[in-house]
Amino acid sequence: MSGNSIGQNFVVTTFGESHGVALGCIIDGCPPGLELNEADMQHDLDRRRPGTSRYTTARREPDEVRVLSGIFEGKTTGTSIGLMIENTDQRSKDYSNIKDLFRPGHADYTYQQKYGLRDYRGGGRSSARETAMRVAAGAVAKKYLKQVHGIEINGFLSQLGPIKAETLDFSQIEQNAFFFPDPSKLDELDEYMRDLKKSGDSIGAKVSVVATGVPVGLGEPVFDRLDADIAHALMGINAVKGVEIGDGFEVVTQKGSEHRDLMSPEGFASNHAGGILGGISSGQPIVAHIAMKPTSSISIPGESINAQGEIAEVVTKGRHDPCVGIRAVPIAEAMLAIILMDHLLRHRAQNMDVNSQTPTIGMR
Amino acid sequence: MSGNSIGQNFVVTTFGESHGVALGCIIDGCPPGLELNEADMQHDLDRRRPGTSRYTTARREPDEVRVLSGIFEGKTTGTSIGLMIENTDQRSKDYSNIKDLFRPGHADYTYQQKYGLRDYRGGGRSSARETAMRVAAGAVAKKYLKQVHGIEINGFLSQLGPIKAETLDFSQIEQNAFFFPDPSKLDELDEYMRDLKKSGDSIGAKVSVVATGVPVGLGEPVFDRLDADIAHALMGINAVKGVEIGDGFEVVTQKGSEHRDLMSPEGFASNHAGGILGGISSGQPIVAHIAMKPTSSISIPGESINAQGEIAEVVTKGRHDPCVGIRAVPIAEAMLAIILMDHLLRHRAQNMDVNSQTPTIGMR
Amino acid sequence: MSGNSIGQNFVVTTFGESHGVALGCIIDGCPPGLELNEADMQHDLDRRRPGTSRYTTARREPDEVRVLSGIFEGKTTGTSIGLMIENTDQRSKDYSNIKDLFRPGHADYTYQQKYGLRDYRGGGRSSARETAMRVAAGAVAKKYLKQVHGIEINGFLSQLGPIKAETLDFSQIEQNAFFFPDPSKLDELDEYMRDLKKSGDSIGAKVSVVATGVPVGLGEPVFDRLDADIAHALMGINAVKGVEIGDGFEVVTQKGSEHRDLMSPEGFASNHAGGILGGISSGQPIVAHIAMKPTSSISIPGESINAQGEIAEVVTKGRHDPCVGIRAVPIAEAMLAIILMDHLLRHRAQNMDVNSQTPTIGMR
Amino acid sequence: MSGNSIGQNFVVTTFGESHGVALGCIIDGCPPGLELNEADMQHDLDRRRPGTSRYTTARREPDEVRVLSGIFEGKTTGTSIGLMIENTDQRSKDYSNIKDLFRPGHADYTYQQKYGLRDYRGGGRSSARETAMRVAAGAVAKKYLKQVHGIEINGFLSQLGPIKAETLDFSQIEQNAFFFPDPSKLDELDEYMRDLKKSGDSIGAKVSVVATGVPVGLGEPVFDRLDADIAHALMGINAVKGVEIGDGFEVVTQKGSEHRDLMSPEGFASNHAGGILGGISSGQPIVAHIAMKPTSSISIPGESINAQGEIAEVVTKGRHDPCVGIRAVPIAEAMLAIILMDHLLRHRAQNMDVNSQTPTIGMR
Repeated sequence: MSGNSIGQNFVVTTFGESHGVALGCIIDGCPPGLELNEADMQHDLDRRRPGTSRYTTARREPDEVRVLSGIFEGKTTGTSIGLMIENTDQRSKDYSNIKDLFRPGHADYTYQQKYGLRDYRGGGRSSARETAMRVAAGAVAKKYLKQVHGIEINGFLSQLGPIKAETLDFSQIEQNAFFFPDPSKLDELDEYMRDLKKSGDSIGAKVSVVATGVPVGLGEPVFDRLDADIAHALMGINAVKGVEIGDGFEVVTQKGSEHRDLMSPEGFASNHAGGILGGISSGQPIVAHIAMKPTSSISIPGESINAQGEIAEVVTKGRHDPCVGIRAVPIAEAMLAIILMDHLLRHRAQNMDVNSQTPTIGMR
Repeated sequence: MSGNSIGQNFVVTTFGESHGVALGCIIDGCPPGLELNEADMQHDLDRRRPGTSRYTTARREPDEVRVLSGIFEGKTTGTSIGLMIENTDQRSKDYSNIKDLFRPGHADYTYQQKYGLRDYRGGGRSSARETAMRVAAGAVAKKYLKQVHGIEINGFLSQLGPIKAETLDFSQIEQNAFFFPDPSKLDELDEYMRDLKKSGDSIGAKVSVVATGVPVGLGEPVFDRLDADIAHALMGINAVKGVEIGDGFEVVTQKGSEHRDLMSPEGFASNHAGGILGGISSGQPIVAHIAMKPTSSISIPGESINAQGEIAEVVTKGRHDPCVGIRAVPIAEAMLAIILMDHLLRHRAQNMDVNSQTPTIGMR
Repeated sequence: MSGNSIGQNFVVTTFGESHGVALGCIIDGCPPGLELNEADMQHDLDRRRPGTSRYTTARREPDEVRVLSGIFEGKTTGTSIGLMIENTDQRSKDYSNIKDLFRPGHADYTYQQKYGLRDYRGGGRSSARETAMRVAAGAVAKKYLKQVHGIEINGFLSQLGPIKAETLDFSQIEQNAFFFPDPSKLDELDEYMRDLKKSGDSIGAKVSVVATGVPVGLGEPVFDRLDADIAHALMGINAVKGVEIGDGFEVVTQKGSEHRDLMSPEGFASNHAGGILGGISSGQPIVAHIAMKPTSSISIPGESINAQGEIAEVVTKGRHDPCVGIRAVPIAEAMLAIILMDHLLRHRAQNMDVNSQTPTIGMR
Repeated sequence: MSGNSIGQNFVVTTFGESHGVALGCIIDGCPPGLELNEADMQHDLDRRRPGTSRYTTARREPDEVRVLSGIFEGKTTGTSIGLMIENTDQRSKDYSNIKDLFRPGHADYTYQQKYGLRDYRGGGRSSARETAMRVAAGAVAKKYLKQVHGIEINGFLSQLGPIKAETLDFSQIEQNAFFFPDPSKLDELDEYMRDLKKSGDSIGAKVSVVATGVPVGLGEPVFDRLDADIAHALMGINAVKGVEIGDGFEVVTQKGSEHRDLMSPEGFASNHAGGILGGISSGQPIVAHIAMKPTSSISIPGESINAQGEIAEVVTKGRHDPCVGIRAVPIAEAMLAIILMDHLLRHRAQNMDVNSQTPTIGMR
């Protein structure tokens, strides 16, 4: 595989550049018989869509997904599902000035060096616009996981720069433009973002994602552990620089007697492990966190070089998110959904009771 | 693939349990013509080997690797390389008492639920003993990377519980049993570990790994980014709960103007990105950190359940590392080497100059 | 992978049903810098296109391919290439009568049993219409192979029912509607087909495909031999029931002294092996043959059953090819091109001279 | 993947050369709970073993397989199974004279050109000795298929040079050294082989393999069709030059009205398709045939070149099979078993009834 696919039994392959004709993907391995239509995907696409609040890029894309194959009379057929979103609001001219420029913190330099040429319009393939298709594919996985197994996946912004969520009120997440679970901090966030925009700068963030209802047993030792595959999927989101499962980097100063989750006949007494033991889901909620870097597209001038190796000053004038972490929430949910879906199918492949041909998940 | 393989062009597949007959692996995709023998692997195996200091498990394994195929007259032939290490110091009786017990923090419960049965001796396949083969395979990758590209990989313990390395003296790493780069803290570490052992508890750690000399251009957008694959490989090491690239979770509170690495004709002015931009290596050193949880095998009693679902107290009496982070240093190096090797080969596959048939790495 | 992808370094993934919205594919792994546009693909698409002669189905599809991504300013960028062909001439009503019918010799029964439901319109995903995207992807591979390595691929109809090509005049192949290399037999073919259509029956065929200019060294022992991967690709074409490399089934009665291709300083004295030894290309022309079954869609009534398991007579009234072997010629070329392209990239990954970093193909 | 693996959910990876230390393999993806021991594999290994009759090579290898991992207390654990066979009867000196020689019809030339060096002893990795591990892995698949699904796989020699089996008496196959199902031809075969040995020549053969009890629904459209994957697996056996499914090349001259298998409420009326429709198993017996070339290792001198490009005469003096088709019977069975096993697991992954979580195989 050459990099544009993820998954082994539930495989998502994407194509498309920020300012190309269209974005698209193929989902290969979706079980047959799932009721599915565009609306199922549109909800999450709208949550990720640019131009929905003053905290995100002003680019206006309807991001309407079109199903090209794989669904017949309202149900998946088991064959490959083709999806497409046409690009409509491409102001490519915004980018002609960066044609020969390597914007600091962007992939301009590395793409140019890797391929010898690049589509410089809006970052081309390296643009986070590509993640729209991940969200569409993730919505398919989410629907299956929920309908067939009762698995639910919820993401939220747990920290924006210095502002941390201190209460976790899941019912609040969809009530504000930040996907923030602590309503007492909304005014503070609002003020922070206003000041940030004024300064022309950007800010990092921490996004968390939780899956509940996951059966025991998902994850394939030893390399394709569930946590390893989640780390792969989440680190593969644009701008992510760190991934944690459960207590994450807090374990560095923990003792064994603190960290280990004791068990009783009633279940686990705690969830420091984040729902994964030995790379396999334990039946507890799966908890992951990611660190999102501040976007490098800011209007504060920065020194860089051009394709000729000469000094060049960069000032970004395009339409950008001051905190890419906000719109990353539905993307992180989508990636976790794709990984859980893939591992659910992988587990099924191998783990059918030898004698009774009954699937083993959740039945022991 | 069913989980025991890593890599796409340089593929490592392992087998073996803690107390089984032998551990082994197959390396598929090693280029031909590389001078290689057992000694090349033994050096790193010895660094990982148990029983070498009072800070690690007392199990004594020579961990002598045997080459079964793929090398002829001292050189790799391009065909699959078979490696084996026989288990010698298996005191399986130590484990008969945990046959029906789910040790908290271990994979006992999840393996039992996933597979319906398990090799309980020393954790079976979930034991970190499996990583010996990763170290052997990683040594092959390391040798190739160094010899052909001048790439070097160095790991170290950057933090053990509350004790952080404050100076980074690479020359000191191999001079102490902790792989610790700050010699001023060695006495403190020693004292800490002595107290820890006395208390019967264990402690977490942070391990860092750095690759220098990496050419620009490694990494395949969009899912198999270099950072995503590194995250997969490092999170797949036993006991790892978090992975960072470059500044990692520090980016959450950074501004764009702080984080972005400015460029000048002399190169990058800083390396907050950890050597990867848009998922592709930038030519700067690649820097990654991992959080290692404290081992759950401690002699402090803990509540758990047995296979019958009844309450059971667990006290671990076997031979265990009080800080698994120490021996994780060569393992992290090995995993990074395997990923870089794999991406080097993947890059080559696609990126040959169309006209001149010259490989593009480092030549633009 | 779930079945809709082929290749490991040059990966083609397709979607689309006979009477769905569109057909499409993603090519992942095409090297950057290749000049490419729709016209490069349209030539082969037109050769495969239905409705071009009275010997093929009357369905009229322009089969105009649209590039959605991966090409910028006339060159491939190294990122994934999205392609799409919209379906236009879908007379789905032709098929409503077979909704509950299992046409003998078709995939109706097996799809229904496998998935529990199926898109019955024109065979849905099992229709040979899907191969249009293979031809488009194959055209990309063909262009690269020719431009960069001088490799050329030519297919032809070597036998149609009882009529065998006895002379191999490659210049004639594109001069007739049969892709037939023996012009002396064209009248006979014409007459045979006229009689066949009158009878309402169909006929089998043998298609051959030859690649010249292939360098020594392509093919990965032991499972992914070049011949094994060619067999996989060719047997995966609809209606193929047999694949031969070189002398194929003639070897059953050959002696070793007849079969083995002797060598001299001038090269090989013969090519019984069809250009592959030990699964690796020998530098001689690669020669493969496939057996195409007669289409089962004929107007002669046949006994079958319906979804309720009751007896039902089947008479096909749709638009079908009386000999699917004819239009299979460009498909077979495309599949061979995809496999050679994939193996070229795979070879490159592993086989760079350790010391000089020079690619090894054709240089020893 | 780099060529030494086969399968996607049931993955077999092999290593080892003809005259190296050992042969081995890793089976990844075998379901847990299968009762398995060395004896289960030894039976088929003994059928393939050299030195068992005067019609096969005189090399004497006990071919005793050793299980290194993955089985605990007599059952598979779901983790990777490591297998090893040590080489014992290596007369490598037999081969020192061919060190610089390219034996015609062998892989000497292509390996040398591909890799720049090669293990010349007995053909190294290109030797059919490597297939011992396929037979061992195939035996695991066979046992699972039979025990869990009642699938049985039987191979036989259907033709040796000019001598064809005219009756198919399955009970006779294991009663003679030829795996020949027509006992009336045994004397003829015996005489033919005696004359052949006297002449120092070798002969081709046709091997057939049949699987019964295969459920409807195995095979993943469109590239990983069951027939395509069988073709890949069978063409990947040393010396195979052709693969047929069902009627194979006979379809070239068949009409649609002859070929299509009519259906009635009692089932199919015939099996021209060989048990596969649209790439998916139909529930009928799966029938495949392969063409085996005559071994090129004969004592009749042949012209070739050496590594310096000079003319050299080749006379093979080592121990070789005059008809490699005979010992190919258990290998072909093993490869078919591996593919069916892999597709059984792949089918399971995707095809669980959405509502009831019941596996769909054989239940509709």
